[in-house]
Amino acid sequence: MNNLIVQKYGGTSVANAERIMNVARRVSKSAVAGNQMVVVVSAQGHTTDKLLEKARGISADANRRELDMLLVTGEQQSAALLAMALQSLGHSAISLNAAQVGIEATSVHYNAQIKNIKTERLHAELEKGNIIVVAGFQGINRFGDMTTLGRGASDTTAVALAAVLKAGLCEIYTDVDGIYTADPRIVSNAKKIDVISYDVMLELASSGAGVLHNRAVEMAKRYSVNLVLRSSLNEKPGTHIKEDSGVEQLSVSGLAIDRNVARVSVTGLPDKPGVAHSIFHPLAAEKLLVDIILLSVGDGDKRDYCFTVHKQDLKTACEILEANKSKIGYESLNTDENLAKLTIVGAGMANNSGVASSMFEALYECGVNIETISTSEIKITVLIDERHITKAAKAVHDKFEPMMSVDFEETEES
Amino acid sequence: MNNLIVQKYGGTSVANAERIMNVARRVSKSAVAGNQMVVVVSAQGHTTDKLLEKARGISADANRRELDMLLVTGEQQSAALLAMALQSLGHSAISLNAAQVGIEATSVHYNAQIKNIKTERLHAELEKGNIIVVAGFQGINRFGDMTTLGRGASDTTAVALAAVLKAGLCEIYTDVDGIYTADPRIVSNAKKIDVISYDVMLELASSGAGVLHNRAVEMAKRYSVNLVLRSSLNEKPGTHIKEDSGVEQLSVSGLAIDRNVARVSVTGLPDKPGVAHSIFHPLAAEKLLVDIILLSVGDGDKRDYCFTVHKQDLKTACEILEANKSKIGYESLNTDENLAKLTIVGAGMANNSGVASSMFEALYECGVNIETISTSEIKITVLIDERHITKAAKAVHDKFEPMMSVDFEETEES
Repeated sequence: MNNLIVQKYGGTSVANAERIMNVARRVSKSAVAGNQMVVVVSAQGHTTDKLLEKARGISADANRRELDMLLVTGEQQSAALLAMALQSLGHSAISLNAAQVGIEATSVHYNAQIKNIKTERLHAELEKGNIIVVAGFQGINRFGDMTTLGRGASDTTAVALAAVLKAGLCEIYTDVDGIYTADPRIVSNAKKIDVISYDVMLELASSGAGVLHNRAVEMAKRYSVNLVLRSSLNEKPGTHIKEDSGVEQLSVSGLAIDRNVARVSVTGLPDKPGVAHSIFHPLAAEKLLVDIILLSVGDGDKRDYCFTVHKQDLKTACEILEANKSKIGYESLNTDENLAKLTIVGAGMANNSGVASSMFEALYECGVNIETISTSEIKITVLIDERHITKAAKAVHDKFEPMMSVDFEETEES
Repeated sequence: MNNLIVQKYGGTSVANAERIMNVARRVSKSAVAGNQMVVVVSAQGHTTDKLLEKARGISADANRRELDMLLVTGEQQSAALLAMALQSLGHSAISLNAAQVGIEATSVHYNAQIKNIKTERLHAELEKGNIIVVAGFQGINRFGDMTTLGRGASDTTAVALAAVLKAGLCEIYTDVDGIYTADPRIVSNAKKIDVISYDVMLELASSGAGVLHNRAVEMAKRYSVNLVLRSSLNEKPGTHIKEDSGVEQLSVSGLAIDRNVARVSVTGLPDKPGVAHSIFHPLAAEKLLVDIILLSVGDGDKRDYCFTVHKQDLKTACEILEANKSKIGYESLNTDENLAKLTIVGAGMANNSGVASSMFEALYECGVNIETISTSEIKITVLIDERHITKAAKAVHDKFEPMMSVDFEETEES
């Protein structure tokens, strides 16, 4: 564990001059305490939305390479402003964009993945005694063009920097106190989680708990980054995300909601090899993210597939399937946009057969019908009518709350 | 003369989506006519001012390296938006920032000079059939850091690109119809100039005629760039800036005004070698631009220096001189901020001894006192009370107008 700390501050934390100065003071405190500092920032407030609006003013369907060229300016501005703020507090500081650091990424614009980060310039600036402020969310591809890493991906930039620099600590600052057992705006008695494993956090993040980017958690797990999520508004310790300690025997760690889900049903398919490939290959070729996939048990020689996509991708998904109708050989295509996803996650779930049935019981007790069920070793997801999602979330959270609180007190001791 | 055209559009021309589409249509027209196109853009409307304001919100004296990092985003945004607009018209287009093109510049932040422009990427994109949109005003230094080339320097970017690409034509688009014999907002009967030589344009640009960046003219002269300044709002031919054709025998080509001038007088200096160096060396070391320098003829063993600086540099200039008072050995330091500069320029001036006296006569006739006089082979500059500048400009313009109009008609024929 070295004295290098990577911190990441989101758009809300750097929304105006006053908040940038607050961030600078927080960074300064860690620097004065003797730490080397690398700070990752997002674009200020609603900058990214405003830039997207500008692009839409020009073209409804702007080229993604040019969109990325436009969007990366937001983070570069915040980085420069924070460097100025740190200098005004008497620190040596320098801002660097992705090209200057050498954050090499794939060419998939707006959803690129970091392939490698060069460390020469970073080490050189740290040796000069500089606090480094890095523009988050961005990389460069092999042509030197800017690519962006997907919405919220400044978290990933921070974790990747912590990994390559072997930082002792990576702190993700946000406007909430940490990870909660459910969204406190929906479930009022949701509790803050003090320690959570990478795996459970990953399932929560992937299931719609928007507080941490799932690729960031994946990368933290792969490189064992010592990750903390905490608030930039207070001094509370936040949630510590780390290797499963073995002490944890949580049945259910948390609950997540995702309203951005639409279901596509493809029915009357022949029961023979290659059918799944014929459906999902053209979707993947268009970089369309498919989530839950279910295959009906089948009746006679016909089978049905259903899967979920983000609501904004529904139209494209249907167009792709219709264009390939003769090749896939389905009878009909149905969609449902009025659904939401409710997921419970917990590392102890695999060894506790009662968890699923308790969840279904809670939903039954509050009168919510289950449209689709999907399970993995550490999570259970149901699709339900979107109108009932708040009621359902509360009911499920209440059902598991006694279990949750006992477990969290145990981990607090560790 | 090849079919490559470099065009440059200023901030007003790309201020909003509608104007960007107008620019795109103009570029498209030249492309459809069979030309290869490289387009340089400035930041939209007041973007640069807004970014400077943001920086001031953080720190009154922001680091220039970070300021440049902040400012270059403005041009990158316009470039991306114009590329999108060109694509929406069916063209292949790509935006490039200074790092992507390889516009290598000196490290003097906010006032860097272009040292070299790499052409590999530019040629590669042109060969792919792309219209290239380049972010103006910026370069990278040898560390890969962004530097900016000074206010209005997108003109210089365009001319430099035209020079390295050996473009057949470089068009600078602005919101006026061309170069005028004086600012038409001040001198109502000012006339548009159809053809002007590099040298005369250079003196005009350097004397405060804000319509074209003087470094751009210098570079155009050095590399014989075929340069045209014209309006993006109409189809008028604009002003052609080129090598002195020999046909031109203009006494006075135009008149320029500069209100951003302050005078410093350093008096009671010893009359010995090294004094000028002791005054101007510390000012140059701080990158302070000094304009007119005058040395009094002297009385006895004491001499006085006086020079002009931009108003915003006056405080710094005085601080530097005071800090070096004992080394320079002057008696007193006086300043005057209420002055403005009036300059007349013309290639034929050197051979016409009556020009200076006609100018002084015009000023005498309208009752304006001359504070300082400075002359070169092709220009005469006077410093006068700022309150009289409009009256003086009109009087001087009227005095030379008959000469101007005859000469311009001659050059129109050529």
